[in-house]
Amino acid sequence: MNFNQMLLQKQTEVNKRLNELLDIGGIPEILHKAIKYSVEAGGKRIRPILTISITEALGGNVSDALDFGCAIELIHTYSLIHDDLPAMDNDDFRRGKPTNHKVFGEAIAILAGDSLLNFAIEVLCQKTIDSNNLNYIKAINEIFKASGARGMIAGQAIDITSENKILSIDELYKMHSLKTGAIIEAACTVAAYISNREDILEDIRQFSRHLGIAFQIVDDILDFIGDEKKLGKTVGKDSKSNKATFVTILGIEEAKRIAKLHTQKAINIADNIDKTGFLTKLTEYLLVREN
Amino acid sequence: MNFNQMLLQKQTEVNKRLNELLDIGGIPEILHKAIKYSVEAGGKRIRPILTISITEALGGNVSDALDFGCAIELIHTYSLIHDDLPAMDNDDFRRGKPTNHKVFGEAIAILAGDSLLNFAIEVLCQKTIDSNNLNYIKAINEIFKASGARGMIAGQAIDITSENKILSIDELYKMHSLKTGAIIEAACTVAAYISNREDILEDIRQFSRHLGIAFQIVDDILDFIGDEKKLGKTVGKDSKSNKATFVTILGIEEAKRIAKLHTQKAINIADNIDKTGFLTKLTEYLLVREN
Repeated sequence: MNFNQMLLQKQTEVNKRLNELLDIGGIPEILHKAIKYSVEAGGKRIRPILTISITEALGGNVSDALDFGCAIELIHTYSLIHDDLPAMDNDDFRRGKPTNHKVFGEAIAILAGDSLLNFAIEVLCQKTIDSNNLNYIKAINEIFKASGARGMIAGQAIDITSENKILSIDELYKMHSLKTGAIIEAACTVAAYISNREDILEDIRQFSRHLGIAFQIVDDILDFIGDEKKLGKTVGKDSKSNKATFVTILGIEEAKRIAKLHTQKAINIADNIDKTGFLTKLTEYLLVREN
Repeated sequence: MNFNQMLLQKQTEVNKRLNELLDIGGIPEILHKAIKYSVEAGGKRIRPILTISITEALGGNVSDALDFGCAIELIHTYSLIHDDLPAMDNDDFRRGKPTNHKVFGEAIAILAGDSLLNFAIEVLCQKTIDSNNLNYIKAINEIFKASGARGMIAGQAIDITSENKILSIDELYKMHSLKTGAIIEAACTVAAYISNREDILEDIRQFSRHLGIAFQIVDDILDFIGDEKKLGKTVGKDSKSNKATFVTILGIEEAKRIAKLHTQKAINIADNIDKTGFLTKLTEYLLVREN
């Protein structure tokens, strides 16, 4: 199998497991529909694929890693639903489809986001009870430190209070390391806990930080030059709303150069973590992606 | 010490621990302020006091119960912030103070709620790691099943989609057993897990269900006849907005009779769980409270 086939296979596995996890009774119909709408809207499933592939490379339990990765994807999806709300970024489209609140209304969208965050915990608790492994609690702790008020939510708070402000490049790095970087970092580091390989936790952390920065810079570049249809969201929205981006601060060429630099640093570590080469190819793919 | 002194002592303990837990760095200032604003706005701290007092009665670790109770109070507070939002119940006052979004704006209020839910998990993970006790995961699982899309959030979804609809008494029971009952139930049942007393889990569950119904009926009665100043929120709001309540469906006298009935059933079980009598007195107090 070549890289693209392996990537597709992993995406299919993640989507299948997400569907299984969400196929439960006892949720009011409109809420259940709203939850599934956003989860099934797709996305690249990069976070769970990172969790799975690093766990595979470390010889850990890949089935458990799949549930951890899916829980992280649920958290990621909740954050997108809340970020898109009128009071926040006020976005009408996401992944080529109307945003959750455009379809289900604001109240249900808020509750759908809340539900996904809650549900992620349920999935992780169940996995920990089933596996009877206290190390999994450390992995859960890592995830919610990353998604909380000192992580992802802090990044979003800085982002919404920074519109029309001139951010320095350091402030921009900090904002993105929290808003998108922290949860990508957790998606990678939990693999070390699942695999009982805390000895290389710091290597994985460094890998994930370089990857996270490169990922966000590429997002900004795509927002600036990308093809609206491929991205599935309104292009140029960030620059129109006077939000600082890596492109507006650094210029397009310098942004590309720095994205490549961090990708190379991530690859240097990936080569050591995953001898199969999949993690390296995934890192390269994230640099050259078109959406 | 009489009951009132014991209650005040426990409330003070809970407030002190909540302050300690929230006194952390790394949260953007406005978000940190918004989080503390709603947590410090007070309330009776009934949920953590239930967790603590049942754990005490069962001979469990009360210091661990305090953190579990505080985490449940954080979840309760997040749900209030989100429920008060304009897209939901659109409330301007809560516990005698302007609601979170009235002070900090909708975006920060949404993020403050998200942060509290996240933070509850962090507190519970840390406690579980420190105690090295896998039974605690079962307690955490119980909490988030109660607060999720099959529990508290389901209740809120039913509530907001039921305005101007005629609910049957059974539908009203169901809605409240989810919206307020589930988390009260979890506040009680976690004490059994913390104390390794799963043998009386079902007794505690029955106690909490009777207590939860009585609690909600008293809330509806207070909303109907209560003194606005003591309640700290707008009185008669539910009946004005055509929401079904136990009072509008049953009438005031029948509502009072049923609240007393469930209180008595709860007391019959409480007498067996807690030989010190505190839990019984707490149950009585919740029936005759004025806010």
